[in-house]
Amino acid sequence: MTKIRSDAPCARIRDRSLLARIVSADAAANLIRDGMVVGMSGFTRSGEAKAVPLALARRATTDPLGITLITGASLGNDLDGLLADSGVIRRRLPFQSDARLRARINDGSVMYLDQHLSETVEQLRSGQIPKPDIAIIEAVAITEDGGIVPTTSVGNSAGFATQARQVIVELNTCAPAGLEGMHDIFIPADRPAREPLLLRNPDDRIGTPVIRVARDRISAIVLSDRQDSYANLGDPDDDTRAISHHITAFLEREVRRGALPPSLPPLQAGIGSIANSVLSGLTDAPFSNMTMYSEVLQDSAFDLMDSGKLGFASASSITLSAPRHADVMGRLDHYKDRLVLRPQEISNHPEIVRRLGILAINTALEFDIYGNVNSTHVMGSHMMNGIGGSGDFARNAGLSIFVTKSQAKGGQVTSVVPMVSHVDHTEHDVDVLVTEQGLADLRGLAPRERARLIIDTCAHPDWRDTLSDYFERACQRGGQTPHVLEEAFDCHSTFRTTGSMVRSPARARPAMT
Amino acid sequence: MTKIRSDAPCARIRDRSLLARIVSADAAANLIRDGMVVGMSGFTRSGEAKAVPLALARRATTDPLGITLITGASLGNDLDGLLADSGVIRRRLPFQSDARLRARINDGSVMYLDQHLSETVEQLRSGQIPKPDIAIIEAVAITEDGGIVPTTSVGNSAGFATQARQVIVELNTCAPAGLEGMHDIFIPADRPAREPLLLRNPDDRIGTPVIRVARDRISAIVLSDRQDSYANLGDPDDDTRAISHHITAFLEREVRRGALPPSLPPLQAGIGSIANSVLSGLTDAPFSNMTMYSEVLQDSAFDLMDSGKLGFASASSITLSAPRHADVMGRLDHYKDRLVLRPQEISNHPEIVRRLGILAINTALEFDIYGNVNSTHVMGSHMMNGIGGSGDFARNAGLSIFVTKSQAKGGQVTSVVPMVSHVDHTEHDVDVLVTEQGLADLRGLAPRERARLIIDTCAHPDWRDTLSDYFERACQRGGQTPHVLEEAFDCHSTFRTTGSMVRSPARARPAMT
Ligand SMILES: CC(C)(COP(=O)(O)OP(=O)(O)OC[C@H]1O[C@@H](n2cnc3c(N)ncnc32)[C@H](O)[C@@H]1OP(=O)(O)O)[C@@H](O)C(=O)NCCC(=O)NCCS
Ligand SMILES: CC(C)(COP(=O)(O)OP(=O)(O)OC[C@H]1O[C@@H](n2cnc3c(N)ncnc32)[C@H](O)[C@@H]1OP(=O)(O)O)[C@@H](O)C(=O)NCCC(=O)NCCS
Repeated sequence: MTKIRSDAPCARIRDRSLLARIVSADAAANLIRDGMVVGMSGFTRSGEAKAVPLALARRATTDPLGITLITGASLGNDLDGLLADSGVIRRRLPFQSDARLRARINDGSVMYLDQHLSETVEQLRSGQIPKPDIAIIEAVAITEDGGIVPTTSVGNSAGFATQARQVIVELNTCAPAGLEGMHDIFIPADRPAREPLLLRNPDDRIGTPVIRVARDRISAIVLSDRQDSYANLGDPDDDTRAISHHITAFLEREVRRGALPPSLPPLQAGIGSIANSVLSGLTDAPFSNMTMYSEVLQDSAFDLMDSGKLGFASASSITLSAPRHADVMGRLDHYKDRLVLRPQEISNHPEIVRRLGILAINTALEFDIYGNVNSTHVMGSHMMNGIGGSGDFARNAGLSIFVTKSQAKGGQVTSVVPMVSHVDHTEHDVDVLVTEQGLADLRGLAPRERARLIIDTCAHPDWRDTLSDYFERACQRGGQTPHVLEEAFDCHSTFRTTGSMVRSPARARPAMT
Repeated sequence: MTKIRSDAPCARIRDRSLLARIVSADAAANLIRDGMVVGMSGFTRSGEAKAVPLALARRATTDPLGITLITGASLGNDLDGLLADSGVIRRRLPFQSDARLRARINDGSVMYLDQHLSETVEQLRSGQIPKPDIAIIEAVAITEDGGIVPTTSVGNSAGFATQARQVIVELNTCAPAGLEGMHDIFIPADRPAREPLLLRNPDDRIGTPVIRVARDRISAIVLSDRQDSYANLGDPDDDTRAISHHITAFLEREVRRGALPPSLPPLQAGIGSIANSVLSGLTDAPFSNMTMYSEVLQDSAFDLMDSGKLGFASASSITLSAPRHADVMGRLDHYKDRLVLRPQEISNHPEIVRRLGILAINTALEFDIYGNVNSTHVMGSHMMNGIGGSGDFARNAGLSIFVTKSQAKGGQVTSVVPMVSHVDHTEHDVDVLVTEQGLADLRGLAPRERARLIIDTCAHPDWRDTLSDYFERACQRGGQTPHVLEEAFDCHSTFRTTGSMVRSPARARPAMT
């Protein structure tokens, strides 16, 4: 058992009766046994338990074991990669974004359940998937009465902590103490006693600032002093600026005709570079008093707050670049009354998403001429990250926008295809599509009308003739959603064998270029 | 203007000031002009306005016009066919199930918007699609203070009536007066004033028994005496009995292990013969005090009520076979306190579906080895009916089951395919798949695990080797969801050219048969 290294951690464990449960990370990791289901904090690389999983990966090098690892979403500090490489991760849900784990998922050695992020704890709660044996939760403090104060994400931590047989708390002494009070923990009751969620605005609080668990279920407390990883976001480029510009112009038109309020509906923005750039673009747009009801707050959310345009942001986690991290964590007081972090089942809850009429902006890998979106599977088979919360939002949102660059892989790939090679979001859930080329407003249009608009507006000019040619020949076969099935994936198949979707010069670069 | 034909209709127009607005169906149909958006009552062939659309179809033979027709769902009395044939329907949403309209949709002459049924009025309300110029609502009565009492369906009637510039009421004198009091009309407020829906149980009432509109917006009242069409449901056969049996056995296991309550969660069952048979099968199952929170009540709901097993049913419409129609309408008092009809945005509301943890049973045309479901497009292109409410329920349900027979078209078609030719429900929204062959419980399984189980459990034995062969070769290419894209639709393409998915005798009937 380690000794406490300073007074600081003790001060953060305000329930003094728990001080005796402090153990080393290695000791805590030893509580985990082969075959267990482990629920860990962590959401989009923030607020994850750090010391125990590291110790676990170390231990596995000499004492092999495999677990089902459930988290909020992706883990930082290279943990998904380390745990995958050490063979610890046998089954993983509900989201990841790590290159090494991804490789093991795609070679079939890790079983990956890609889930809607609002659903995991519902499935645990109702016994549809096995409950965690152990929960490992990063905390910034333990209150006088044993309440666990999460750090930079809430994710599924509250659900894990209340459902697991035992809880390991990882007290992170370098997480700013100012995070305390920023969380709003609400756990829906078991059915049939489930009540309406009395959350009417993004800034409503419906829960408690801490996760409550019976003291005797806290079996260990581990001290850690590792920081969250920084987000590695690409800078805005001409393409993302163009996408952002198209969206702003569209939203301005909607406000002008009275279909959207001047403050816009509460915003949700997806993960990744493109969504971050798009949201940053709203800094220069003529909307004010905006709010966010989202899953992750990236740099862009703080850009918007600093610009005075964003009044309040609700999410399940904060994931920032290095400079933004130092800045935000250094002056949390400045943001504190404008931020709340919630469990992901609440941040992504269909009930709230529909009630608020969220304006959802998520990212596609590719979309097709009829408006179906692939956000997860490269060339139909290989997992990139996962669907995340995009399905929770897109299905139930008031307005659902998907963005992508019109080409990928240096122009070898068109992101606008005849048929997506994997469907995450069906045309029913997609109102507006945007690339740097333009914006297609699909509302009120039938598939054949969508096709014309998408090809003319969103596709890169180099691919328009190929797509039009497909569409016209498909129409000769008839149907609500015309296809030439035996050619539907020609682009993808060609890419697989040649590294480019371009089949022949004639087809690739037709007349106009 | 017609004269009133009897005292009965007058007695049903209890607001005497409105008697003067009675006109003929032809006169009312003349209020509709070319290019208008018309919102009509009617949901799964029940409660549709009958006289005015018939008059409109007649008028169009000499005075051609085209409209956008929005309804709750499909229309009875051959109206979708007649209006399509007379060229009146230019654009149609959000659902249909008529063979002649379907033909025009698939040849591209009618623009069809296949929508989630909970979303249409939301899109109207927020100005995302054009509001109706005229609403035509079938009613069983108009109350003293001008309230409109719907008949056998509510559908989108309340939304249309409150949003349209003018309202035509079709007073159906042969709809049983006893329907009055059976409706619960609740219209969500415009955002941002939207409140939680305080509906906690299927039998809660949150609205009013009538649709309220300002009197001066009722521009005409038309009398009609046509009945609803009868449902044409196929009788249970060995296959649907087997499906039903598999589901019952599965649910019993879930109850036994405590994952479901002995009364089951509130049930939703899809449309069509298969869903009806499956639900009927629960009559012999050991569950009691069941409730339904569904979209349509078919014969099976009344079978279950009569058996004493179903205590309460909430839906948006009642659609019955001829014998059941006479029976139920003849003794409405018997069912009255066990039934409520709601607007479809409430019957299908994501908020309620999630809160109640609905047990949703819907029908697939085909599903694939990874659990994706096609419920709408035959061979990927040709619209059958539409997604209806299946997406509202499957995404947000507590447990989502899809059923289909393992083969179609006399065994020429396997309903379990390598890749669905169209995706309505992604693997994220599909917990359990059932055919007459067996039941695959997909919860907690990764795609590769799902594939093995689905092939072995759900596919017809004649196709298992073909599917296994595909899957194994796909795995050699790797991926979370392995595919051989250039062969993914071989079955479908072969069917298109040969009328059978069977390519060669060797491939079709392998070793085991
Ligand atoms: C779709 C998603 C991967 C895009 O991420 P991004 O950082 O904005 O976009 P990028 O352009 O950098 O693309 C990411 C990768 O996908 C590749 N890619 C993009 N479009 C592609 C296409 N059409 N075909 C193949 N690969 C493609 C890029 O080349 C890049 O690959 P690399 O990392 O090997 O270079 C990401 O948003 C995601 O995982 N979304 C799903 C989850 C989600 O939406 N959550 C939102 C709720 S919070
Ligand atoms: C899917 C659906 C069409 C099935 O209807 P059903 O009456 O139970 O099933 P049937 O077996 O009679 O099939 C209907 C038709 O589809 C055809 N079909 C079934 N499986 C098929 C397949 N795999 N490939 C091609 N055609 C198929 C049948 O041959 C039949 O065609 P026919 O009418 O020309 O003979 C119907 O449930 C539907 O429209 N669902 C979508 C809407 C919905 O789910 N709403 C639920 C919320 S209330």
